[in-house]
Amino acid sequence: MNRRMIIEILSHVMRVEALLLLIPTCVSVIYGEFNVTFSFLITAALLGLFSLAGVFTKPKTRDIYAREGFVIVALSWVVLSLFGALPFYISGHIPSFIDAFFETVSGFTTTGSSILTDVEIIPKGLIFWRSFTHWIGGMGVLVFMLSVVPLADSRAMHLMRAEVPGPTVGKLVPKIKDTARILYGIYIGITVIEVILLVCGGMPVFDAFVYTFGSVGTGGFSMHNAGIAHYNSLYIEIVIIVFMVLCGINFNLFYFILIGKLRDALKSEELRWYIIIILCSIAAITVNTMNMYDGVLSSLRNASFQVASIITTTGYVTADFETWPMLSKCVILALMFTGACAGSTGGGFKLSRVILLLKKAANGIKGIVSPKRVAIVKFEGKPVETATLSSASVYLIVYVAIFMISLLLVAVDNLDFASTVSSVLTCLSNVGPGFGICGATGNFSDFSVLSKLVLSIDMLLGRLEIYPMLMLCSPIMWKKRF
Amino acid sequence: MNRRMIIEILSHVMRVEALLLLIPTCVSVIYGEFNVTFSFLITAALLGLFSLAGVFTKPKTRDIYAREGFVIVALSWVVLSLFGALPFYISGHIPSFIDAFFETVSGFTTTGSSILTDVEIIPKGLIFWRSFTHWIGGMGVLVFMLSVVPLADSRAMHLMRAEVPGPTVGKLVPKIKDTARILYGIYIGITVIEVILLVCGGMPVFDAFVYTFGSVGTGGFSMHNAGIAHYNSLYIEIVIIVFMVLCGINFNLFYFILIGKLRDALKSEELRWYIIIILCSIAAITVNTMNMYDGVLSSLRNASFQVASIITTTGYVTADFETWPMLSKCVILALMFTGACAGSTGGGFKLSRVILLLKKAANGIKGIVSPKRVAIVKFEGKPVETATLSSASVYLIVYVAIFMISLLLVAVDNLDFASTVSSVLTCLSNVGPGFGICGATGNFSDFSVLSKLVLSIDMLLGRLEIYPMLMLCSPIMWKKRF
Repeated sequence: MNRRMIIEILSHVMRVEALLLLIPTCVSVIYGEFNVTFSFLITAALLGLFSLAGVFTKPKTRDIYAREGFVIVALSWVVLSLFGALPFYISGHIPSFIDAFFETVSGFTTTGSSILTDVEIIPKGLIFWRSFTHWIGGMGVLVFMLSVVPLADSRAMHLMRAEVPGPTVGKLVPKIKDTARILYGIYIGITVIEVILLVCGGMPVFDAFVYTFGSVGTGGFSMHNAGIAHYNSLYIEIVIIVFMVLCGINFNLFYFILIGKLRDALKSEELRWYIIIILCSIAAITVNTMNMYDGVLSSLRNASFQVASIITTTGYVTADFETWPMLSKCVILALMFTGACAGSTGGGFKLSRVILLLKKAANGIKGIVSPKRVAIVKFEGKPVETATLSSASVYLIVYVAIFMISLLLVAVDNLDFASTVSSVLTCLSNVGPGFGICGATGNFSDFSVLSKLVLSIDMLLGRLEIYPMLMLCSPIMWKKRF
Repeated sequence: MNRRMIIEILSHVMRVEALLLLIPTCVSVIYGEFNVTFSFLITAALLGLFSLAGVFTKPKTRDIYAREGFVIVALSWVVLSLFGALPFYISGHIPSFIDAFFETVSGFTTTGSSILTDVEIIPKGLIFWRSFTHWIGGMGVLVFMLSVVPLADSRAMHLMRAEVPGPTVGKLVPKIKDTARILYGIYIGITVIEVILLVCGGMPVFDAFVYTFGSVGTGGFSMHNAGIAHYNSLYIEIVIIVFMVLCGINFNLFYFILIGKLRDALKSEELRWYIIIILCSIAAITVNTMNMYDGVLSSLRNASFQVASIITTTGYVTADFETWPMLSKCVILALMFTGACAGSTGGGFKLSRVILLLKKAANGIKGIVSPKRVAIVKFEGKPVETATLSSASVYLIVYVAIFMISLLLVAVDNLDFASTVSSVLTCLSNVGPGFGICGATGNFSDFSVLSKLVLSIDMLLGRLEIYPMLMLCSPIMWKKRF
């Protein structure tokens, strides 16, 4: 393990966070919230101080491998969240550190689960920072770092692979640095367009930023207790639906569209499934909840928003799906599990993994009938390597195992069935709301400290797709040589 | 597809069922229930009539392969259940045929879920037949057939593999016929011992048979509304705990013990895990429910019975686990999923599969750290073939997929969260009770016809471990040649 190199890159990450903190600092100054400004500056100063560790460390070799990649990404996210929680804690607006940590992890991992019972009393600066964490976490903080810090491609690839979600990660252009810049360029472009569209719909500029960060990062933090429903505007709901759905798509496809390969982008198998699943889910819920709302258009509106919000793992709600019939609830539950496309800002198990596993299963079953025939699984028009298939199965096994362990730990709180099961699922999939006490109108404030810690770890496990976090616990990772 | 051979073997199976029906016929005669006797005789006559199809079919070739094995096993179980339901329906004690079918499938698959709200008004003959289906289904009807009907080993193996649960099936002795006889010999031996022990504890002989069939088949049908709790006897509970746990063990191990290889049997990795999981679960639930009962011994007694009943997928209950704290409920839920050992009469996902998958996952994670190292997964002291590991993953994928589809279909009934989720899990794992309306004190009578059909199919899918039933739906299976 090249520890010095890990320290060096972590120092870069801390410096990046310190710089990013200056943006909410400005916001708090504008709104005259000097207590909050102070807490931001203290945090930035602490980050600067700790990042000095990198200055005094001279790596003997600059080589890093997959294992260092995982450890760096996992440690970065833990460090980011620990420091990111400080402004909430120091300013006194979240008096318990574990609550502040939970809220910050929920922000960075774009989950959007909250322990706040009244979000409207929180100062603007903190609200901005809270939503800004969604934006940072959506595309990934190491991807951002790679677009500014010089690092050899062979090394950068290990970081990229460990942070970008999905079963496989490809480079868009030969250089990682350029790939990272293209991804962030598209991301910033989408963000700016949504802000403009929301402001055009009559939303105040500050609000437009908050809800844009929440939707393009597929996070889900609000600044009103009623969430998006606060505006009661069909236009705003449609804009947010469109941007949530867009940000649930693999960002590589936007690059293909930008360079004029629209046809290639539309050929994507994962995209087709994504659209089919969204349409079928909306249809099923619209029919199923028809009697609950005034007319089919109203139920279509509610179904569309909730489906778009849950499959992209954003977690905004405009209708209390807790009151829906069980069939609609189960559709929501299934979408919570699957999540959006790989390489998007969305969480969950990822559609491409679901497709890969179903194809593997179909192939396996055919193999039982005709053992001699060797069939090849194809995805996105190309044959899939056995290693990729096998690693997708391993992902499912580990996912189920972590789900079970978390369930047993959260069950100690002795809540009801729906709250216990859905809290673990929603955190592991980075969705946000669940059912029961953490449902559409509830929050996570009543969970115990143990549960909040378990759920925070689940959010990190979900966002980083398990392996980086598991590596931190593996004793083999801490040996100098192996 | 060798259709003629399929018809011939199905005819054997029907004849076997007709003969087995004579036993409850005698019981009904003894108790003077002539209406019931009549319905048994009609059913046996119909079976005899239909089995004539085999007499007039002359297979051109007697070869059968894996695909025929699956189709024969799946069809046999469907046919057995359809005819097995007739006595309930003809006698008028279960007036709806789908209810009678559900009850019979639940019997043969050793699930023990019931649609009866008052079991004490059902005649003795039908009660005997209902519990006897557990006993027949526990070891498998084709295994029984193989021990009496002459069939070449190469052909018999395909039937054995398709019916006996677990990731791999081995022959105990060179000949399948002898293997089948040994298995049934052990099974009959265990049955006789339990009947004697229960009668010694003061249980009437008829009751002793009913509860023995329910526990050695790991089924769970009772003859009292209060179940085993009716006797309120610690001795009876202990006897039943011991026999449930014994019948959750791979029957091959009993053979090893019989031929003096006790040490080999005790070395079994699956057995060790089975015992560890049982002990840990009992300990956790005892501590967790301590405040609910008078003293630790009482809570230990309840925890032991319920854990033994659920992990072996029997489903007898002596305490209402619906009232337990959430942690204990989640332990029960986890045990419902895992189930007992492969090659036992128990259902569920099977511990050996869980162990294999966890080892595969551990191996996969190690592979991410050091991609060059090729590690071999070992189980029961032997290296596991890649094909076996891969097929266990496929099983998990298909299991999850079937679970999700069933959940969406049962959700149409619009029951609560716990009832919907647990009804599917308990049927797919052949346990019996779930939570909510189908909980320890509930039953399945309030489910809709659609749900009863879906849950019946889930029980068959669970007992036959999915593939045989899936084959029935595959178009490729019905082509003459492929």
